[in-house]
Amino acid sequence: MVDIATRVYNHKWKIDPIVRSLIDTDFYKLLMCQSVFRNKRDTNVTFSLINRSKDVRLADLVDEGELREQLDHIRSLSLSRGESTFLRGNTFYGKRQMFRPDFMEWFENVSLPAYHLEKRDGQYELTFEGKWPEVMLWEIPALAVLMELRSRAVLKDMGRFELQVLYARAMTRLWEKVEKLQGVDDLRLADFGTRRRHSFMWQDRCVQAMQEGLGDKFVGTSNCLIAMRREVEAIGTNAHELPMVYSALAESDEALRQAPYDVLADWHEEHEGNLRIILPDTYGTDGFLAGAPDWLAGWTGIRIDSGDPAEGAERAIRWWKSRGEDPTQKLVIFSDGLDVDKIIELQAKFRGRVRVSFGWGTLLTNDFRGLVPNDGLAPFSLVCKAVSANGRPTVKLSDNPRKAMGPAEEIARYKRVFGVGDQKDIAVVV
Amino acid sequence: MVDIATRVYNHKWKIDPIVRSLIDTDFYKLLMCQSVFRNKRDTNVTFSLINRSKDVRLADLVDEGELREQLDHIRSLSLSRGESTFLRGNTFYGKRQMFRPDFMEWFENVSLPAYHLEKRDGQYELTFEGKWPEVMLWEIPALAVLMELRSRAVLKDMGRFELQVLYARAMTRLWEKVEKLQGVDDLRLADFGTRRRHSFMWQDRCVQAMQEGLGDKFVGTSNCLIAMRREVEAIGTNAHELPMVYSALAESDEALRQAPYDVLADWHEEHEGNLRIILPDTYGTDGFLAGAPDWLAGWTGIRIDSGDPAEGAERAIRWWKSRGEDPTQKLVIFSDGLDVDKIIELQAKFRGRVRVSFGWGTLLTNDFRGLVPNDGLAPFSLVCKAVSANGRPTVKLSDNPRKAMGPAEEIARYKRVFGVGDQKDIAVVV
Repeated sequence: MVDIATRVYNHKWKIDPIVRSLIDTDFYKLLMCQSVFRNKRDTNVTFSLINRSKDVRLADLVDEGELREQLDHIRSLSLSRGESTFLRGNTFYGKRQMFRPDFMEWFENVSLPAYHLEKRDGQYELTFEGKWPEVMLWEIPALAVLMELRSRAVLKDMGRFELQVLYARAMTRLWEKVEKLQGVDDLRLADFGTRRRHSFMWQDRCVQAMQEGLGDKFVGTSNCLIAMRREVEAIGTNAHELPMVYSALAESDEALRQAPYDVLADWHEEHEGNLRIILPDTYGTDGFLAGAPDWLAGWTGIRIDSGDPAEGAERAIRWWKSRGEDPTQKLVIFSDGLDVDKIIELQAKFRGRVRVSFGWGTLLTNDFRGLVPNDGLAPFSLVCKAVSANGRPTVKLSDNPRKAMGPAEEIARYKRVFGVGDQKDIAVVV
Repeated sequence: MVDIATRVYNHKWKIDPIVRSLIDTDFYKLLMCQSVFRNKRDTNVTFSLINRSKDVRLADLVDEGELREQLDHIRSLSLSRGESTFLRGNTFYGKRQMFRPDFMEWFENVSLPAYHLEKRDGQYELTFEGKWPEVMLWEIPALAVLMELRSRAVLKDMGRFELQVLYARAMTRLWEKVEKLQGVDDLRLADFGTRRRHSFMWQDRCVQAMQEGLGDKFVGTSNCLIAMRREVEAIGTNAHELPMVYSALAESDEALRQAPYDVLADWHEEHEGNLRIILPDTYGTDGFLAGAPDWLAGWTGIRIDSGDPAEGAERAIRWWKSRGEDPTQKLVIFSDGLDVDKIIELQAKFRGRVRVSFGWGTLLTNDFRGLVPNDGLAPFSLVCKAVSANGRPTVKLSDNPRKAMGPAEEIARYKRVFGVGDQKDIAVVV
């Protein structure tokens, strides 16, 4: 018998909010936010949402009113008491009080700044301006909202049984992936799929499937809210926005050349152990590693987020050896465009040579490829990036020219400063 | 674990439709509709919604856009195949093929005509104009929509547990009523609560409670859709709109005096047995019975829908005796403002003297009195009536002057023609 009170309650929501918590975000955002809050809190930044998949015409698919409602709802959020208690009291990476009291006090009182939204050429231009520690909090929820509104736009014309079958198929596919991974020895795998998930509920379901199916091989999720709810580890360290903004702020070519190391020097002061993970590809991995100070070689690991992943790992191993470090004690985290077969291949290739870990993103939490006509639920490449800092444009090169970002003349300057030559073109899947 | 497909399905409805079927209406509407379709199908009528409870400011409570969406949804409805099969094939009042093929063919293709909606003085002015067989179908869904939108307006600010407790209390109250009625011998009770129900789901729940709690004492429901779903009898015969429209069409005082009998003459041709129920109060019961032809005394029963119910029943018994009929073989149906104590009192008073039956309406399906602050869910007196026919105003007098309707000069004329004197004032509860 239908529970009338529950049904009435469910039906009186004006909207079905996608992001319902400020910690429904990637854990590393909070770590970076604390670092920015300490070191660069007065920096003015602009973040901008960019859809690299032009064929997915978001502004035609997603109603502007609904998008605004979802974004307005996010602006109405503030940290709940339980969330605050969790952040203040939980152990992250083996450490209590990872978040300092001054940061927590600020975070408890923060709400997200205004957004600017326009339609152009079938796409949304969505930008956020303001102080860096506030604006940066928009990235993940903005992406998650657009991704899920796109899912809903496709789901809205489907019947009840079509939906049942759709989710049955997606769940079957997910479980078959989990089963394939069960046989992989020494696997260490985390969910990195918040930003391009099919939906919040689906990401949560993916985490539960990995908990049940992979046991200790599943080491945690980047999603802070899901980590709290499902009592798994919150995973993540730092991202490109740090070197991008530090670099944009650099006053000279010399300062620019130094900026990516300055970021990690600040990080070095704050964090130790498994949080000391180098993300070397912002302006080309080769140049970065060649110019790196020795204390960086002492860090725990490297995250490989662009370029050919096996090449990236080989490069890291060579670099550690050249600095007298033992690669078998080092951690390589793969986090770019992973799916099961690639995970299995990389694990087989590097197991025993380095410690290996995987941050599995879009093809974990949004593999609805081929499940609806015209592949309308296939994941697509949406990003939200810092595009300027204190009025200067940011630049990203990465190890894949298709992921490059910034004004052409600045890209040229960065390539010169960082000594980046030809790069290998790799299709950006997600 | 939440069923994602079901949740997605439920959340993608643009509205939560209140009336989802053309047979979510009172059974007697369909009987009358068939009669009108046969005898007066080209009559132009106007029906108008009237809120007698002026303190319930519907236009302040209920959003006009939501109201229009609900009414538009009703206009999009047509008879489903299963509903048609049910109407064509089910036994009603012991008779197969109650609905004739020509009527069914028309009904299968009908959709409800346009409505006219305005706000005035905190109330909605909602009118329907067109051919009688189509316009008359608006009455019950229009009332049900306004009633349920008012419920929703009050429920929308309540929390999840408040709602649980609200429905727990209402269900407890309903069940205590059922338990009180379990001890009443020879009880025959039907649900007449469609038009002023709290909500569709609640009416459906009330029917289930009576099925479980009252067994054979529960004889059926006026709601055709619920009768079909719950496999109980569909109950109802005819209503005031027939004599009101027939009377408005009368060309002379003499024809007017005859009109209420003409209605029943047409009905006599179509129906027999328990469908031959006199509704005598439209222009005063005393005059109606005094002037009634003898063949009407041979009808099965009388429905008492206004005035003091015990007086009305005594009057009917006297009348039958005066016409040489045996009242113990006759049926009295009480249907005005009933609740448990009144039902028990009337049953005790008339059991054995006549056959007694009860049509329990608003205080069955909408007894939320005292359950929320300011009694915001208390039932109120909303009606939807024929106000003109072929351009002439209709009139209703009833046995309670507070229920009188029509232009003052026409009311005076009708009182003169039907010889209606002083009437006793009775508060209109619902």
